Amino acid sequence: MAFFRPNIEAMDGYVPGEQPTDPNVVKLNTNENPYPPSPRVLEAIAAVTPEQLRRYPDPLGNAFRDAAASVHGVTRDMVLCGNGMDDILNITVRALSGPEAKLVYPVPTYTLYAVLANIQASMVKEVPFGPNFELPTDALVAEHGRVTYLANPNAPSGTTVSIDAVADLARQLNGVLCVDEAYVDFADSNCMRLASEFENVLVMRTLSKGYSLAGLRFGYAVGHPNLIAGLMKVKDSYNVDAVSIAAAAAALRDQDYARQCWAKVRDERERLRAALAGLDMPALPSQSNFLLARPAWRPAREVYELLKARRILVRYFDYPRVSDRLRITVGTREQNDKLLAALRELRG
Amino acid sequence: MAFFRPNIEAMDGYVPGEQPTDPNVVKLNTNENPYPPSPRVLEAIAAVTPEQLRRYPDPLGNAFRDAAASVHGVTRDMVLCGNGMDDILNITVRALSGPEAKLVYPVPTYTLYAVLANIQASMVKEVPFGPNFELPTDALVAEHGRVTYLANPNAPSGTTVSIDAVADLARQLNGVLCVDEAYVDFADSNCMRLASEFENVLVMRTLSKGYSLAGLRFGYAVGHPNLIAGLMKVKDSYNVDAVSIAAAAAALRDQDYARQCWAKVRDERERLRAALAGLDMPALPSQSNFLLARPAWRPAREVYELLKARRILVRYFDYPRVSDRLRITVGTREQNDKLLAALRELRG
Repeated sequence: MAFFRPNIEAMDGYVPGEQPTDPNVVKLNTNENPYPPSPRVLEAIAAVTPEQLRRYPDPLGNAFRDAAASVHGVTRDMVLCGNGMDDILNITVRALSGPEAKLVYPVPTYTLYAVLANIQASMVKEVPFGPNFELPTDALVAEHGRVTYLANPNAPSGTTVSIDAVADLARQLNGVLCVDEAYVDFADSNCMRLASEFENVLVMRTLSKGYSLAGLRFGYAVGHPNLIAGLMKVKDSYNVDAVSIAAAAAALRDQDYARQCWAKVRDERERLRAALAGLDMPALPSQSNFLLARPAWRPAREVYELLKARRILVRYFDYPRVSDRLRITVGTREQNDKLLAALRELRG
Repeated sequence: MAFFRPNIEAMDGYVPGEQPTDPNVVKLNTNENPYPPSPRVLEAIAAVTPEQLRRYPDPLGNAFRDAAASVHGVTRDMVLCGNGMDDILNITVRALSGPEAKLVYPVPTYTLYAVLANIQASMVKEVPFGPNFELPTDALVAEHGRVTYLANPNAPSGTTVSIDAVADLARQLNGVLCVDEAYVDFADSNCMRLASEFENVLVMRTLSKGYSLAGLRFGYAVGHPNLIAGLMKVKDSYNVDAVSIAAAAAALRDQDYARQCWAKVRDERERLRAALAGLDMPALPSQSNFLLARPAWRPAREVYELLKARRILVRYFDYPRVSDRLRITVGTREQNDKLLAALRELRG
């Protein structure tokens, strides 16, 4: 049986992080926010009526688009809703890249870009980040990508490049620059204003991390109205559902609650980073809700396994520049303390 | 600005039916079920916890897969969950068709197939249905599609071809046969058993119509485990959310409630069809929850406009074999009576 396209037959598919069902596991492996979503979200879900379920939802998700327009100071026609950031990425890959249209991104980064390019049978070029994860602007520009992806903050490094560097890249590119800001809520700055300043910049966000809604699947992109209109042609007709639209709009509008969560995560991140350094497990400076830390005293894969045996899950990636490190989600103070205690024990 | 792939630049995008916000509109244009979803669905949604929202959902939606396996007498590994039937269609198009892999379907049918093929830049061949919407088996087989789509019941005709005819087609095809059973809950028979009998048959279902959950976005496909495993590589990692998985599983498990709704729709369909015939507006026999009716006394487009002015929405399609007809969703008895009264008045 060889029904599938050759590129699909040959590929493995993206492997998401483990989702244990045991509630006692300290889960620091998939970068969820450790705090619950805003109470406004639960209220919005409770208010969903049978009639909203029975009817097709708003195909454009305007209730959410208006919330995003208000929060980011843009217009409704600059916002595209997606069934998670994955859907947004998927739409852009299909609209902009292909066998004749190169997709470019700096590495190491979010491995889903490679998977989506593969599914699309797209021409693709990976460009190495600088030694300290500096943006390789000249090398990226030289590739003439029809679309260039930049995760900023980057995953799994947690590092960030400056707005000026991103703007400079956008200015030099002929194609579209997609700035994946999945983790930006935990950073000191963001590139949202570039979505208004450049007609080739798309800023992509998710409610999974900053708004504690990984279970809901809601992402969005902000860009020039022409860019959004073209992407609309590729999205599924009703790609976001009635419950999600209401819940996501409620979450985004409750900026006060979200900002409190972000501040707590940032504080814990710095505390955890200092404590890890004290355990000979230095981490890169991070602007995200995770740390990429290198245990100096034992191979990272072994530490991953030993932690897992103690019901503490972190993420290990077996690929270049990262395979000697662990990506650790910043948890609650209590979770982080459990991790630190286990590491202290393992280090001996 | 020419950022998009040429196939995307050139296309218009799928235009979904109008979704009026005025609750007084008699909405018979997008084939929603006129009855509310099962009370079990609302209970499932109310039971969603903050923790389920905070964490990533089950990537495979196993709670729903188990419900589908139980209802259809198949195994869990034969079920693929989707963010609406659109997502299922989208996944199959991307996995199976392309510039080198032909996508085939009989027409007139659901116009989204053409749109998705276009987005994929796929080779595509449309084969005409017979004069009374008979399955054009020989012509379909002669095209050697890598994937062949068959809406059964078909939209917008509402007509159905027999299980034996579908099995015969599956036997003769080398590629995959996707049987789009979006409307099958209102039919007297279905092709689900072919998903177990043939390794190249995928039976696709939605909860939008039969389960009154258009607003929730949930569809699924049933097929050979190898077929499902290949499609899994192409789906987004977390393509269905925690709320939808719980709600869809609850809806599917409440077969008693669903069957009562289907019976009411079927009864109303036959009553409406007889009444339309009496108004010189004969409709094809339908196994779905809509009728394709031809007003003998006035152009269909004009009748559509005149009904709309009376706040009654039906669907008009401006394409061959259909442009002299209106597609009318079967509503509640009260809604159907309003439609009939308006038509009686218009006919004069």
